[in-house]
Amino acid sequence: MCSSRLPASLARECEAVAFADPARHAEAQARLDSLTKPQGSLGRLEDMARQLYGIQGQAPLKARPSRMYTIAADHGVVEEGVASNPREVTVLMVLNFLRGGGGVNCLCEAAGADIRIVDAGVAADPFQPHPRLIDAKIARGTANIAKGPAMSLEQCAKALELGIELAEQARKDGIRVLGTGEMGIGNTTPSSALFCAYLGFSASAMTGMGAGLPPAGLAHKSAVIQRALEANKEAVSKGEAFAILAALGGFEIAALAGLIIGGAARQMAVLIDGFIATAAYVAASRLAPAVRDYCFFCHGSAESGHAKVLEALGQKPLLDLGMRLGEGSGAALGFTLLEAAARIYNDMATFESAGIGKH
Amino acid sequence: MCSSRLPASLARECEAVAFADPARHAEAQARLDSLTKPQGSLGRLEDMARQLYGIQGQAPLKARPSRMYTIAADHGVVEEGVASNPREVTVLMVLNFLRGGGGVNCLCEAAGADIRIVDAGVAADPFQPHPRLIDAKIARGTANIAKGPAMSLEQCAKALELGIELAEQARKDGIRVLGTGEMGIGNTTPSSALFCAYLGFSASAMTGMGAGLPPAGLAHKSAVIQRALEANKEAVSKGEAFAILAALGGFEIAALAGLIIGGAARQMAVLIDGFIATAAYVAASRLAPAVRDYCFFCHGSAESGHAKVLEALGQKPLLDLGMRLGEGSGAALGFTLLEAAARIYNDMATFESAGIGKH
Repeated sequence: MCSSRLPASLARECEAVAFADPARHAEAQARLDSLTKPQGSLGRLEDMARQLYGIQGQAPLKARPSRMYTIAADHGVVEEGVASNPREVTVLMVLNFLRGGGGVNCLCEAAGADIRIVDAGVAADPFQPHPRLIDAKIARGTANIAKGPAMSLEQCAKALELGIELAEQARKDGIRVLGTGEMGIGNTTPSSALFCAYLGFSASAMTGMGAGLPPAGLAHKSAVIQRALEANKEAVSKGEAFAILAALGGFEIAALAGLIIGGAARQMAVLIDGFIATAAYVAASRLAPAVRDYCFFCHGSAESGHAKVLEALGQKPLLDLGMRLGEGSGAALGFTLLEAAARIYNDMATFESAGIGKH
Repeated sequence: MCSSRLPASLARECEAVAFADPARHAEAQARLDSLTKPQGSLGRLEDMARQLYGIQGQAPLKARPSRMYTIAADHGVVEEGVASNPREVTVLMVLNFLRGGGGVNCLCEAAGADIRIVDAGVAADPFQPHPRLIDAKIARGTANIAKGPAMSLEQCAKALELGIELAEQARKDGIRVLGTGEMGIGNTTPSSALFCAYLGFSASAMTGMGAGLPPAGLAHKSAVIQRALEANKEAVSKGEAFAILAALGGFEIAALAGLIIGGAARQMAVLIDGFIATAAYVAASRLAPAVRDYCFFCHGSAESGHAKVLEALGQKPLLDLGMRLGEGSGAALGFTLLEAAARIYNDMATFESAGIGKH
């Protein structure tokens, strides 16, 4: 399944991701049906518990400790005027996250989750050291996808490896659940281009307002995405997952794809955030299809196109709260849902223990 | 607005519930729009924060401490064969809740919320004292609504007063957010009858499987609901909210209606659970329309009819997770969402404090 041009170490990592054993699902279902509730009456919380058991293979289920990685990078394509914010806002938002003032900080705090901010390719000097910062800058932003590939294959491999290293560090720290966060002014544009290349959508179907592009800017953004697909048509037409990611992605997107693969290879649950994290998921799933069994689609983004993508993936998001912030905000809400699912599975009485005839 | 036959003390309580001041919404919106995020990008979390500010009128918003009241009672109508479980399961589930083994216990634990189990009318001897138990039995179950009124007006007033007392006790304990939980074998039937009487739905449109009625039982259940409406047609045709509640409700439903009114009168946020709690809400809102501004509709129940009711109320539930357990399980998930909304409002940096031009 792995892409032929993928470095051997990355290919091995992809192959290490195994589909969950269906026997585990049956075991989990038997447990869920023994609990003091009408069968199936906890709906998707039961689905989550079953999936988590498929990942962990033993009880009690562990939804903690959990960690959000909010990975930041810049994008050459912003020079085309596709973003409503100047590129410098990426730096300012990273600083905001380091000070704890971002939306994702507050939501991780509410969920009792750890957060790390990763510089994978912000177009600025390295940040000052900070306990929550991981300095892993690959370059000062990608190249402009409207003119050619965003990254070289080597850079893309480095970004994937970065994500795997983040997963490995989390595993060493005992983390059981990973959140996929991102920050990068302009990063809905490469995400849209990836959805077009991987899933066959049209540029216009995948073009949304991002952080706040006025309606007049949408046609231009769509045209830029179309130009990106043409400027990278060799990669797109060959359909090779790794080359497409290098051509149309971004450092944070590729690093998130690596995080998803690395997390799955290490039996961690991975909470997928919104539009951009889903683009990383699609790339990851092309490289290692079994990541599907480790990922939870936390929320349907209000960004136009996300609903169509999730439908194409056969996924129904857990939450539909009209959010479109990114940063990992939707995944952060998922931490608490997964914890709720684990508690149900671990702590509810059974009909037998409660002395109740099964109903 | 209050019902003419309502005792004077209850009428005063209903009149004490005031609509939120629209000026507060504008203040909250200004704060939300100053935070480091694209305007509106946190979707319904922003709506929740705005509503909570409307209730509390000051920052920081407080979504904690929170308490679930899971109120239990039995229903005479179970003798008609409308429930998939024997009536005795109400007692067994109360004991299960007291031991901490119910779904609602696990979800409150996950949310960091307190829980109290209230016997408002279980058809059995009083429970042994327990720190989480509130013994407030009004009678050993209601009468059979298919043959006449569930409660006398005096009993219904007592149940409403019980709910108000629970709210008052919570307020004394410093609680800011209330959850509306219930347990009562057969209690979807009176809830359906109340939706028919208050909102004009047909019995068949409001008939669902409850805890697990087989398809063959649905037509019978629908016929029983229809008989209940006919047996209580005087109350139904007069349209008097209090008399309808007495005729078709239940002790736990009326107590929840009182809890909603009492919570709103004391500036607490009230989290509405699923089908049965929504029936209590409808009764409460007929007695005190301003309760609307204090209530959060936490989840859309998989119980057939709930979606139609919420639509009629102009409410979109926060969660749609296919749950149909009751007990307060959906409201318990709402605790964490409201806490998330409060954190956003209280703790996010502003554009000014973060030195970012507003985007």
